[in-house]
Amino acid sequence: MFFTSQTTSDGVSERHFTLDDIPGVLWSPPGPRDGRPVILLIHGGGQHKTAPAVLGRVGRVTARGFAAVALDAPGAGDRPKTPRDDQFAAGLRQRMAAGEPVGDEVAKYNAEVAARAVPEWRAVLTALEADGQVGGDAPVGVWGVSLGAAIGVPLAAAEPRIEAAVLGLASHDTLVEAAAQVTVPVQFLLQWDDQLVPRDEALALFDAFASPAKTLHANPGPHAAVPAFEWDSAAEFLARHLSPQPAP
Amino acid sequence: MFFTSQTTSDGVSERHFTLDDIPGVLWSPPGPRDGRPVILLIHGGGQHKTAPAVLGRVGRVTARGFAAVALDAPGAGDRPKTPRDDQFAAGLRQRMAAGEPVGDEVAKYNAEVAARAVPEWRAVLTALEADGQVGGDAPVGVWGVSLGAAIGVPLAAAEPRIEAAVLGLASHDTLVEAAAQVTVPVQFLLQWDDQLVPRDEALALFDAFASPAKTLHANPGPHAAVPAFEWDSAAEFLARHLSPQPAP
Repeated sequence: MFFTSQTTSDGVSERHFTLDDIPGVLWSPPGPRDGRPVILLIHGGGQHKTAPAVLGRVGRVTARGFAAVALDAPGAGDRPKTPRDDQFAAGLRQRMAAGEPVGDEVAKYNAEVAARAVPEWRAVLTALEADGQVGGDAPVGVWGVSLGAAIGVPLAAAEPRIEAAVLGLASHDTLVEAAAQVTVPVQFLLQWDDQLVPRDEALALFDAFASPAKTLHANPGPHAAVPAFEWDSAAEFLARHLSPQPAP
Repeated sequence: MFFTSQTTSDGVSERHFTLDDIPGVLWSPPGPRDGRPVILLIHGGGQHKTAPAVLGRVGRVTARGFAAVALDAPGAGDRPKTPRDDQFAAGLRQRMAAGEPVGDEVAKYNAEVAARAVPEWRAVLTALEADGQVGGDAPVGVWGVSLGAAIGVPLAAAEPRIEAAVLGLASHDTLVEAAAQVTVPVQFLLQWDDQLVPRDEALALFDAFASPAKTLHANPGPHAAVPAFEWDSAAEFLARHLSPQPAP
């Protein structure tokens, strides 16, 4: 793991790093690292590790004293695109130009990206711990919707260090299977008029989580129209479940 | 309207009143009445105007500087029971003792109670304004689940002074029709494993609200197991929509 740059804004340090060929960013607020929760911020499709939608979450997370990590997903941001990535993007443009539905293609591609991204996230978390950037006892949360949930659901299923998850705006057979393995608290976002994710499939995915503490937040509007108050609520949810308990 | 008693606790006055034969309570925090939001707290089935579930909301509402009103619903609390009320209660006990489902009977009875309760709530609100207890320009919210939503949905549809509503744990054909007339912001609670309200009917009721700003919160568990954090969220929702805006 190599740290390549560091800047500080309002006391929050932003350190860019690479692990093998994976570029990432670690944001750390002032204060001791020991026991400080860290949130894995997984960007959506067509975005990257410092997209505005990611930075909006960084502010909400670091304001609560938590650290945050973002990576470029395979084929996104600063990472090279494979022929399959280019083929997907070209096909998506064609179908959208023709006014055809794209939800199935997006879900299938996202599942392929997730199969590569999940082990990357686990390796980065291990490397950040080994480097002392994240405390070994740090509660870990994951926050990803759309492509971020296509990665986040199987990541939460596979990674026992994750203790809470904000997910949503996604559905796929592989996600339903993974959700049945997730037992940590989940806040799940659903857009009632999502043009990419059929409502009944999104409800079935929420239903599939094995978590005793799962909560569904649904709002009207299309895929990308999640209201801002849901991002505040998501940060509150993570704080409720990850904040260190005061000693008795 | 006659006020029959007044006590004060932690600065919040609790004044019992009657309007015709309707017994009610008005809670008022310290401070000026002008422009102060007032929340109509509608109790659930088998409860009454000062049931613990109502008082839990009173605390959350008055802590935000809002006034609150609760009434005994027809056939509940201090009010006389009609032969129909007694017949419903006896039939409910029999069916529950026999392990039979009761959701349909409850929804039908609640719709009957609502037809009597909605004009009562409107008359009480008018009387409180006429008496100067509630400012004529006060933003009004309604908060009721289960029987409280069976009353609250048609009340929000009929009463233009209502500007925001917390509703849920209910479904019935008459509610779907009323919901289509509701355009104010709605936060709707759904219990994923509700033994009284079929999930698809509750989702259809949420779908029916005409409100551009409606939000669904669903949690696992049976009818009465709404988690405490939802009551905090409901109070926050009402505060977000009813708090007077600072002057520009």
